[in-house]
Amino acid sequence: MSILITGIRELVTCDDDLERADHADGLGIVRDAALVVGSAHEDVATTIQWVGPATAAPAADWAIDLGGKAVLPGFVDSHSHIVYAGDRSAEFAARMTGQGYDGGGIATTVAATREADDDTLRTLLRARVEEMRAQGTTTVEIKSGYGLSVADEARMLRLAAEVTDEVTYLGGHVLPPGTGHDAGERSAYVDLVCGPMLLAALPHARWVDVFCEPGSPHAFDEEESRAILRAGMAAGLLPRVHGNQLGPGPGVALAVEVGAASVDHCTYLSDADVDALAGACGTTVATLLPGVEFSTRSPYPDGRRLLDAGVDVALATDCNPGTCSSSSMPLMIALAVREMGMTPAEAVRAATVGGARALRRDDVGRVRVGGRADLAVLDAPSYLHLPYRVGVPLARTLEV
Amino acid sequence: MSILITGIRELVTCDDDLERADHADGLGIVRDAALVVGSAHEDVATTIQWVGPATAAPAADWAIDLGGKAVLPGFVDSHSHIVYAGDRSAEFAARMTGQGYDGGGIATTVAATREADDDTLRTLLRARVEEMRAQGTTTVEIKSGYGLSVADEARMLRLAAEVTDEVTYLGGHVLPPGTGHDAGERSAYVDLVCGPMLLAALPHARWVDVFCEPGSPHAFDEEESRAILRAGMAAGLLPRVHGNQLGPGPGVALAVEVGAASVDHCTYLSDADVDALAGACGTTVATLLPGVEFSTRSPYPDGRRLLDAGVDVALATDCNPGTCSSSSMPLMIALAVREMGMTPAEAVRAATVGGARALRRDDVGRVRVGGRADLAVLDAPSYLHLPYRVGVPLARTLEV
Repeated sequence: MSILITGIRELVTCDDDLERADHADGLGIVRDAALVVGSAHEDVATTIQWVGPATAAPAADWAIDLGGKAVLPGFVDSHSHIVYAGDRSAEFAARMTGQGYDGGGIATTVAATREADDDTLRTLLRARVEEMRAQGTTTVEIKSGYGLSVADEARMLRLAAEVTDEVTYLGGHVLPPGTGHDAGERSAYVDLVCGPMLLAALPHARWVDVFCEPGSPHAFDEEESRAILRAGMAAGLLPRVHGNQLGPGPGVALAVEVGAASVDHCTYLSDADVDALAGACGTTVATLLPGVEFSTRSPYPDGRRLLDAGVDVALATDCNPGTCSSSSMPLMIALAVREMGMTPAEAVRAATVGGARALRRDDVGRVRVGGRADLAVLDAPSYLHLPYRVGVPLARTLEV
Repeated sequence: MSILITGIRELVTCDDDLERADHADGLGIVRDAALVVGSAHEDVATTIQWVGPATAAPAADWAIDLGGKAVLPGFVDSHSHIVYAGDRSAEFAARMTGQGYDGGGIATTVAATREADDDTLRTLLRARVEEMRAQGTTTVEIKSGYGLSVADEARMLRLAAEVTDEVTYLGGHVLPPGTGHDAGERSAYVDLVCGPMLLAALPHARWVDVFCEPGSPHAFDEEESRAILRAGMAAGLLPRVHGNQLGPGPGVALAVEVGAASVDHCTYLSDADVDALAGACGTTVATLLPGVEFSTRSPYPDGRRLLDAGVDVALATDCNPGTCSSSSMPLMIALAVREMGMTPAEAVRAATVGGARALRRDDVGRVRVGGRADLAVLDAPSYLHLPYRVGVPLARTLEV
């Protein structure tokens, strides 16, 4: 079965190798384009079979005319925490009148999530994934980290695996509520994360992650973080890191040391951190999460500095109940342009192929033959409208 | 015909006089509320007939259960420029890499708008109004100002009057492209705005407005602005002013002097300006347009300072092709909270009853018996989610 899609005024492919495309902005743009999507099956069209100018398009079994819209790779949201129960909008409102963020509010979500049964969590999770799809996101990574017990972490990961392939074990999110912060209790929890909890996570997870933030009493220092990542890697998981969010720290260096696919936040970076990330280009992506800085009224990371240094950059939402409750990749693009010195084209790359790199995925984040037919369509003639028309719901997933 | 609306987890009325409501945040909230909307006609429900707790609700001809959502007064967007043709997204992208804004880009839109025929402009305008409704906006003010000739200004106003009662004559937007800036040519254009162009505007417009910004060579100084406002008022129009957007200036003082319903932008205010606005409370509203500061990377106006001084504050989009192409009132609420020191409750008030005051309207902006049944419903349990879940399309107009 194959479908010909026409009426694409601007096709953003993010494919640097595509012939007959405009590569001036690094987006591999084809104007007045067409696509053929299809598969060997009769009723699904999951693969891109042809990309090019409409005038050269081949025939197909079915045809869709979009009437002059922009089409992009579906957004790849490589960082989210959307398996949870409870509501922290009042905490947000309090923070906006001056209260700070140190990771302590996570305990509220842990309590509500542990208390919720599977069906409740599943309903909430599926509604969030649907909300993301409705805004053009076609791949989402989902972390555990609100269970913080063997059974609850395994439960979160199992539910996440029902809706995505990109499941991340984040037993090392914060110390569980009630844990004393003395060395013995900390080390007992790290042993749990590296031992029985990890074993319970393995059937469901692809990734291991840790919140490396020595400045927060709730999160993990360099040595603890290294132990958690090494244990996960020894068990076959791929590493990624929360680092350098709340202050300077060892997160970026550790991520590069272990060959992490991504280090996320990167708000406070030394020159050595930037150099290390530039040297790790092709291996470790810097994933920026500007919705967090918006929602915590914190300084934004310097996207321009990273891009100028040659670092691979991704954008993601970090959608979570505490520090950023937005699931909108278009908003992240607009914030990257307004606040982080990125051009609209750089922001769109970071939200598509950048996210795919942060997940070591070759089949999404670009529009090219052989890749997945995961596409976003805009109620607009150009990708420029994503930051230009900030806040307007222009993007949706193209359902074929 | 009457309709009972139930399943309202949180009803924001903005009605300070409503009994049995929670007035702690100034929003007149009723929890687990119901509404009856109806009219004397058989097929429309245009008026609010009853407001209160669901347990006390009367019977009605029909019933709608919203299943636990938040309901607010529909947003009142008291400042927009949405009659235009052309696309300036490339200008936006250029500005984001450092180019400044001085009002000169308006000439691009003037040329495209003059060239477009009525049907083209009408189609574009109606799509924009529909886009606003889809985001919860139920009242929109629309300005002329991209015609800048007698015939083209009249045409813009006539088209605007097809879709709203709040039509503003803005012949005094900028000097038309090609006008020399010497005193003679300036004064000839001001005479046109105060004479034949005003006469042609009268059948369509309720308001007269002027872009008072002596620092811009394209806009109007104090004396020119006063002449334009006074001429409009003498002909029966009500005054409103664009003032103090690009730098300190006489706009606010002039607005208060003429008893304008609103002075819009208010980015650069002296202490005397703030005092004047506080003294004009009940007459002149300060309308803040943070989408402009977002989209031009300018400093945000200080909403907190105005509120603390006792000034009436409204929020609007300024939706226009140059300096803010967003039509999203929820985004303006989120920006007011993040960037302007306003609480979520203050921002919601400014976007509803504040906008209604800026348009001297008593029948919209609040949910109360006798008012219009113009309502916004959120895919969320509380108004707090508007800034908390920034960028997510939660709000829509409730169609009854």
